[in-house]
Amino acid sequence: MFDRMTLADPVPFQAWMQAHQALAERELDRLLPAVGTPPSRLHEAMRYAVVGGGKRVRPLLAFAAGALTGAPVERVATAGAAVELIHAYSLVHDDMPCMDDDILRRGKPTVHVAFDQATALLVGDALQSLAFEALARCADREACDAALERVALLARASGSRGMAGGQAMDLESVGRRLSQPELETMHALKTGALIGCATLLGALCGSPLGDGERAALERFARTIGLAFQVVDDLLDAEASTETLGKTAGKDALANKPTYVTVLGLAAARQWAQDLHAQASAALEPFGARAQRLGQLADFIVKRSS
Amino acid sequence: MFDRMTLADPVPFQAWMQAHQALAERELDRLLPAVGTPPSRLHEAMRYAVVGGGKRVRPLLAFAAGALTGAPVERVATAGAAVELIHAYSLVHDDMPCMDDDILRRGKPTVHVAFDQATALLVGDALQSLAFEALARCADREACDAALERVALLARASGSRGMAGGQAMDLESVGRRLSQPELETMHALKTGALIGCATLLGALCGSPLGDGERAALERFARTIGLAFQVVDDLLDAEASTETLGKTAGKDALANKPTYVTVLGLAAARQWAQDLHAQASAALEPFGARAQRLGQLADFIVKRSS
Repeated sequence: MFDRMTLADPVPFQAWMQAHQALAERELDRLLPAVGTPPSRLHEAMRYAVVGGGKRVRPLLAFAAGALTGAPVERVATAGAAVELIHAYSLVHDDMPCMDDDILRRGKPTVHVAFDQATALLVGDALQSLAFEALARCADREACDAALERVALLARASGSRGMAGGQAMDLESVGRRLSQPELETMHALKTGALIGCATLLGALCGSPLGDGERAALERFARTIGLAFQVVDDLLDAEASTETLGKTAGKDALANKPTYVTVLGLAAARQWAQDLHAQASAALEPFGARAQRLGQLADFIVKRSS
Repeated sequence: MFDRMTLADPVPFQAWMQAHQALAERELDRLLPAVGTPPSRLHEAMRYAVVGGGKRVRPLLAFAAGALTGAPVERVATAGAAVELIHAYSLVHDDMPCMDDDILRRGKPTVHVAFDQATALLVGDALQSLAFEALARCADREACDAALERVALLARASGSRGMAGGQAMDLESVGRRLSQPELETMHALKTGALIGCATLLGALCGSPLGDGERAALERFARTIGLAFQVVDDLLDAEASTETLGKTAGKDALANKPTYVTVLGLAAARQWAQDLHAQASAALEPFGARAQRLGQLADFIVKRSS
């Protein structure tokens, strides 16, 4: 068992982040079936898709939000890993030839390139099941109503009225000129739903949120999810493939609307700053308990990959 | 609210089956987002994949098993529909070009033919999320530990150590000569896991199972799941595409091992009978409460499509 999180934490952010990224990796490793367990090729491909890649922003948000409600770190680790498994499955399916047809992810060949398309399809399907199995198994018996709520929230955020729905809107948008509100609705589902869910799930691993606290946290999650996507679009337009670890400039090539194509570079940069300010403001009611969430918001907006 | 199931039921099996198929359809219709809800095309395709097709064997098994434990019909309807959503998603993904590349399902063009491959991928993904959302939302607060167990069981039965794992073994088997034990392991996962899960989930919607009852029910579920697959293979070898509503003779064409190719027609027919007898024997401890499960076992073995 891990200790409960303390409310005020003197550890520098960088060290906090590294320690909690390591916790997330360890939890993902614990949840993923061993490669030796049949079917071995599928389990090998599932690990290939998940292990050792990404900044683990969603688990980090869960850990940071867990500090708001004194959540046990072990329980938050499982919730954060479940969200990360959903995120990982969505990347595997998105990269497939019938979707974005991408060959590079996190600096490695994508799953359908390293294995094959049928395996990539099954990897995504099985990672989604594993996410819900993890959430449903982690509960202490006395807190199972909160555990059920976490399952329902993650399922909602993943499905047709969440991430998968955002993907569908993205498909329909190719070659069309979207307005900023249309683009926002799409991204609120495609990226925002899962980012927001990670934050909420982390907090829901602890004591109940107070009056107004849940609304404030949802406001934070919504704005930081949007900021994350705006920064993603800026990076896609500005960075090199080497820095990103995935193919840069894909959105423009695919004629996909992004915040940069809709707003222009300068306005998109300004908008990321505005969203950052709104996210920070939403944390005010939490005081020092929101230290890590605030630092994560800074990190998300200022990252270079 | 529906009434609780009575233990002994004088309604003829055919009428019971039709009434419960209708209940399953109604529950699936309730769970699926309306076509008018954006993203409309995705929601239209999800309904296309699920509504008005199939015998609903998995929900029927859940209803029949619910009678063992006096389960409220409403709760069983949700559990059965959740299993059916997982089954429907697996069919959509299986039919895709990178898997079985099939164009006909339940007498209609498959989802990637009627819509497109990217939509078919998202339909499957979103149906899986919807299954877990439904299970997690249906619980009464006082029975939420059983609801969590149902989520965990369905997730396990769907993932890499269940249905998706069986699919992966199936992929690896193409062109190879499997032994009967290898074929059984594959089918125990690919078809059996979900059939068994439907049965167990139905029973777990009611009072706790007695000593030995769960083991007997799992034995029934295992044998009837296997019998289902043997009969499927017999039908694929013997029936016409018109009767099946899906392309007949595909397995032989794809050089896939089936019970017919491994055992031969006569031995496969005999084996379906043996499994049927074993399934019926497993129901003996339940007496009259297992009336519907016994009738369903008869139906599964004697069906012609």
